[in-house]
Amino acid sequence: MAGPVAIVAGRGALPVALSRALAGQGRAAVLAEMAGFPVANPDGLPVVCFRVEKLGALFKALRGHGVAEVAFAGAVARPRLDPAQFDFKTLTLAPRILPALKGGDDATLRMVLDIFEAEGFAVRAAHEIAPELLPPAGVLTRAQPGSRDRKDAARAAAIVAALSAVDVGQGAVVADGLALGVEALPGTDRMLAQVAGLPADLRPDPGAARGVLFKGPKAGQDRRVDLPVIGPDTVAGAAAAGLSGIAIAAGGVMVLDRAAVIAAANAAGLFLWVRREGET
Amino acid sequence: MAGPVAIVAGRGALPVALSRALAGQGRAAVLAEMAGFPVANPDGLPVVCFRVEKLGALFKALRGHGVAEVAFAGAVARPRLDPAQFDFKTLTLAPRILPALKGGDDATLRMVLDIFEAEGFAVRAAHEIAPELLPPAGVLTRAQPGSRDRKDAARAAAIVAALSAVDVGQGAVVADGLALGVEALPGTDRMLAQVAGLPADLRPDPGAARGVLFKGPKAGQDRRVDLPVIGPDTVAGAAAAGLSGIAIAAGGVMVLDRAAVIAAANAAGLFLWVRREGET
Repeated sequence: MAGPVAIVAGRGALPVALSRALAGQGRAAVLAEMAGFPVANPDGLPVVCFRVEKLGALFKALRGHGVAEVAFAGAVARPRLDPAQFDFKTLTLAPRILPALKGGDDATLRMVLDIFEAEGFAVRAAHEIAPELLPPAGVLTRAQPGSRDRKDAARAAAIVAALSAVDVGQGAVVADGLALGVEALPGTDRMLAQVAGLPADLRPDPGAARGVLFKGPKAGQDRRVDLPVIGPDTVAGAAAAGLSGIAIAAGGVMVLDRAAVIAAANAAGLFLWVRREGET
Repeated sequence: MAGPVAIVAGRGALPVALSRALAGQGRAAVLAEMAGFPVANPDGLPVVCFRVEKLGALFKALRGHGVAEVAFAGAVARPRLDPAQFDFKTLTLAPRILPALKGGDDATLRMVLDIFEAEGFAVRAAHEIAPELLPPAGVLTRAQPGSRDRKDAARAAAIVAALSAVDVGQGAVVADGLALGVEALPGTDRMLAQVAGLPADLRPDPGAARGVLFKGPKAGQDRRVDLPVIGPDTVAGAAAAGLSGIAIAAGGVMVLDRAAVIAAANAAGLFLWVRREGET
């Protein structure tokens, strides 16, 4: 399997991080970009632009590039399909695609992965290609979580676990036991922006507990798809929301640009805690 | 028990609705208002202003008004306590108050209700005083929920049920299977405002499914405290968020100013569906 890896590229900086990790391993990459959702391509990789209506054309183009492996990287907007444009391949897959598009994120993604595998592509998770994106457990910053922060992280982790039972969200913000924010489809950055905009009287005493962002994968998440990601923007959002720090599930959340993330957290006085499940 | 009912008054229009319901039954009411959180008092009811630090003074004032029954109405901001100000009664209750303030909403409220009952007050739920606030099951508007709306309502109800296991939120917005918003401490209006501000590419095809707000009580919620409430503002928020309608749990959500709510929903083309559990 020496050919290029196709990166099905969604939002965020993960596609670039992944192609650079591949380059470091002497592997080439091709970006597969959904029409209407252009992705950053600073390294000038070959791009295959696709429409879900034309999956036959996508698979053919990937094979033309010698692709045998595919990685999904970053959330892709759920496409609005035009059935009149379906090619033969999409038509034959429509009975599986259309119902799955109505489910949660996981249901949709599992369907997509299954389709690629049925076409003979090997699906590789981002953290499998670039394991260095998963930091070791422990506190990576000068700031350390206090005992209230640890309780808030545990409560936020419990909330994320409860949400994962209904295929929703991967993050929550808790301050002094209060759930200030719960992540839904719009994502972590929007949740943090909403917390930042809360009036003071909705928050607990900031002198006592400023609040913790917890992120973790959904329970039972398909490990072929990308795990949740944090990056420098997450630190900026957490700082703007007045939080004391960020806790992420050890082995379950990727950190993009780790050095920059730690430097930004240190500069803002936030902790970054890579938390083992159940750790207090 | 012919004396006045004390309404421990929080945010929103429920305290006024409740005092007017009592007046219709020939009962008087007294507003108990937490210092720093003034409440509307259009009918000029007697007001007892209290601090959690001075519960002894509160109980004495209520007894001075001849109060034997208490109703809690509307969310109250969690107070920031100054232990130096505690009176004797609050000091003796502090071992129960302080830990409960760190839990979820329900833990705190249960503690408060228990304290009032231990003092000899009868705690009455708002819907017990004014059962007319709970509308009958069925669709109350000209607009009817379609089959997608019914599926979205069922998924949102499942999300609310999952959240109630971790003592969070009472509402969710789902559109075509996608969780666009999950209610946390900041409440329904803020969740709807966030949904209204989402970029179009985060939403499903609005021609196919515009989305449903579901509200319901937490599973196992203490029925002595007020059930969730919707009112004309909720309809305005749902309309601004582009939703197709509102579903509420039958017997579990109070509707303030029902005629105005139905008129506003009809004017906006929204449905209001009082949904029995499990109904599709």
